[in-house]
Amino acid sequence: MKALQFTGNKSFDLQDVDVQPPLPGEVRLKVAYCGVCGTDVHIYHGAMAQRLSLPQVIGHEVSAEIDAVGEGVTGWQPGDRVTVRPLKPGKEMPIDNGVQHIGQNLKFIGIDAPGGMQQYWNVPAYTLHRLPDNLPLTIGAMVEPLAVACHDVRLGEVKTGENVVIIGGGPIGMLIALVTKQKGANVLISEVNEARLQLAKSMGLATVNPKETDLLAHVEDFTNGAMADVVFEVSGVQAGVAVMTQLPRVRGRIVMVAIHAEPKAVDLFRFFWRELKLIGARVYEPEDFEEAISLAASNTLPLDKLITQVVPLTDAQNVFEAIDQNPAGMKYLLDIQ
Amino acid sequence: MKALQFTGNKSFDLQDVDVQPPLPGEVRLKVAYCGVCGTDVHIYHGAMAQRLSLPQVIGHEVSAEIDAVGEGVTGWQPGDRVTVRPLKPGKEMPIDNGVQHIGQNLKFIGIDAPGGMQQYWNVPAYTLHRLPDNLPLTIGAMVEPLAVACHDVRLGEVKTGENVVIIGGGPIGMLIALVTKQKGANVLISEVNEARLQLAKSMGLATVNPKETDLLAHVEDFTNGAMADVVFEVSGVQAGVAVMTQLPRVRGRIVMVAIHAEPKAVDLFRFFWRELKLIGARVYEPEDFEEAISLAASNTLPLDKLITQVVPLTDAQNVFEAIDQNPAGMKYLLDIQ
Ligand SMILES: NC(=O)c1ccc[n+]([C@@H]2O[C@H](COP(=O)([O-])OP(=O)(O)OC[C@H]3O[C@@H](n4cnc5c(N)ncnc54)[C@H](O)[C@@H]3O)[C@@H](O)[C@H]2O)c1
Ligand SMILES: NC(=O)c1ccc[n+]([C@@H]2O[C@H](COP(=O)([O-])OP(=O)(O)OC[C@H]3O[C@@H](n4cnc5c(N)ncnc54)[C@H](O)[C@@H]3O)[C@@H](O)[C@H]2O)c1
Ligand SMILES: [Zn+2]
Ligand SMILES: [Zn+2]
Repeated sequence: MKALQFTGNKSFDLQDVDVQPPLPGEVRLKVAYCGVCGTDVHIYHGAMAQRLSLPQVIGHEVSAEIDAVGEGVTGWQPGDRVTVRPLKPGKEMPIDNGVQHIGQNLKFIGIDAPGGMQQYWNVPAYTLHRLPDNLPLTIGAMVEPLAVACHDVRLGEVKTGENVVIIGGGPIGMLIALVTKQKGANVLISEVNEARLQLAKSMGLATVNPKETDLLAHVEDFTNGAMADVVFEVSGVQAGVAVMTQLPRVRGRIVMVAIHAEPKAVDLFRFFWRELKLIGARVYEPEDFEEAISLAASNTLPLDKLITQVVPLTDAQNVFEAIDQNPAGMKYLLDIQ
Repeated sequence: MKALQFTGNKSFDLQDVDVQPPLPGEVRLKVAYCGVCGTDVHIYHGAMAQRLSLPQVIGHEVSAEIDAVGEGVTGWQPGDRVTVRPLKPGKEMPIDNGVQHIGQNLKFIGIDAPGGMQQYWNVPAYTLHRLPDNLPLTIGAMVEPLAVACHDVRLGEVKTGENVVIIGGGPIGMLIALVTKQKGANVLISEVNEARLQLAKSMGLATVNPKETDLLAHVEDFTNGAMADVVFEVSGVQAGVAVMTQLPRVRGRIVMVAIHAEPKAVDLFRFFWRELKLIGARVYEPEDFEEAISLAASNTLPLDKLITQVVPLTDAQNVFEAIDQNPAGMKYLLDIQ
């Protein structure tokens, strides 16, 4: 079988390797599609070099069919259509506070363990979620990022009729917009990339470009003076952090989705003054995957519009090179069938 | 009657002024004690100059007896012992989100309107809270800062058995420590001022000086590796902000009590990584005053230890000068009887 090995230095090597039997508790998947995530692009650029042992197969946004079932695995059959929640919790520590999905000893499959950019992939059975028959496997590969969005929205406790502003309309921001809109919120995306603004509009989302329009005045207008109940910071840049505290009304919430590698200047006065809340959100819990799957299967979200291109695994190296060159791109899927 | 007028430029003028009749809806108080707050010291130093119209009587930490009752006021009688919740809500705005105590048009009595450093003081009847007979009027003047602490603890949702770290052992941090300890939390105060550390110890509080001891290692030890459920940032300095994100366990909470006039560098990565929450808290709501009064009346908190000195109103100028010179001082009360 073919496995896309990341060998470091912006290089992939498509190797022929032996198919492995699933260990006890594992299933072997026949991978259908694997999305390319921002994290994968980071790895390609050499970030997380200390965390990765090379060569490594990366990728964690997968749809698949079960190919074989290991010893002791119940409830799953070859042929079942699934997606993978790529988290392997480790030994629980006191500091974990009983929260499994982000424990100290968590391993992320596709970074700390081999990922889905290969034809056959062995994963623990507990990572699986069933995909309904009517869900295309392309969309099945979007469930993982959609589950991120569901988690963020759940932790932000977004309710019908609330005013929501999303700072950053990348794949994650866009999915948060679709999920909050589906919940009946009044949603605005702030984004600086014109192609992404156009894409958001084509999905029926309200947009604003903060480089062209005064964002504060626009949000005041958009919310009839009420300002935002919930702000999602999904840009990862200082400009996003600077404005995130300006947008919420009294007791508004800010959900911190973006990964800010360096400390950023934050207007803490605003937290005091308006009794704001900042809520960190990381990956997902099982219920977020379930919600993402039922949302995707309900066919009410235009998820297909977020798929920029589907390319064969043999073209993976080109895809990673293309992503850097194409600011209009959103989600690339590798076809691994 | 005597009224202490702040005239700007670090100067007070003790003037003889006429006693005024209470307007409809007001009561006239005969003030007993008025605490000197950090805010008052800020005003003395010239901060909030644009907000204050001089000369102004300041002070908002008051115990008093009702002297006269204005038209339309029910439920209050001359002789009633009271304290004042010094907030005048204004016209409600959409941005207020229905939260009265920090609305856009709120006026703070003692800054935006005349305060309690005078013998007779007219305030709206809705600002009053009754003091039980067994509560000394000196302690009655501590109810306002104690209500701040009750509000902070309530918004932080501190529960019995939780590990709490308080960064900054000034009057507010010390009161938060007493309230959380009374709720059955395991409480540690981090403070750099030796006199304040000694005072905290004398009240039976666990303390640490982060300039002498590795705070992270100490908290790990103090909590048996669990780290903090709740951190209160009450220092107002960058060092406090830098460490506040390091102390909480997964899904821990940080309550932002301090007023940070300038943006500060915040480790936003930690919010994502451990799904932390930052919760802004400002002043108090009526229920916080009620809780503060019953706590004070229960006689279980060593509030008297926080009173550095009780001085006559005639000495006010000296007191403000002394506060700057005495890092060991906590709470000075003006005796206005
Ligand atoms: N919390 C989690 O578990 C989790 C999961 C996945 C991704 N992430 C993080 O979420 C963030 C978003 O992920 P993504 O894949 O959508 O990334 P992305 O880089 O594609 O999206 C960021 C978007 O922000 C826009 N932007 C830049 N400056 C802006 C500004 N001033 N105002 C408004 N928008 C601006 C960019 O044009 C871009 O479209 C990243 O930081 C990523 O690391 C977090
Ligand atoms: N949220 C509200 O409504 C509200 C109400 C009152 C006061 N406040 C604010 O709360 C804060 C505390 O008020 P206060 O009257 O107790 O002030 P304070 O200045 O007396 O207390 C701050 C304490 O922090 C200590 N400190 C300084 N550096 C430190 C460090 N690195 N680590 C640990 N401690 C350190 C100082 O020694 C001092 O004792 C102030 O910022 C004040 O403006 C807020
Ligand atoms: Zn991903
Ligand atoms: Zn005060």
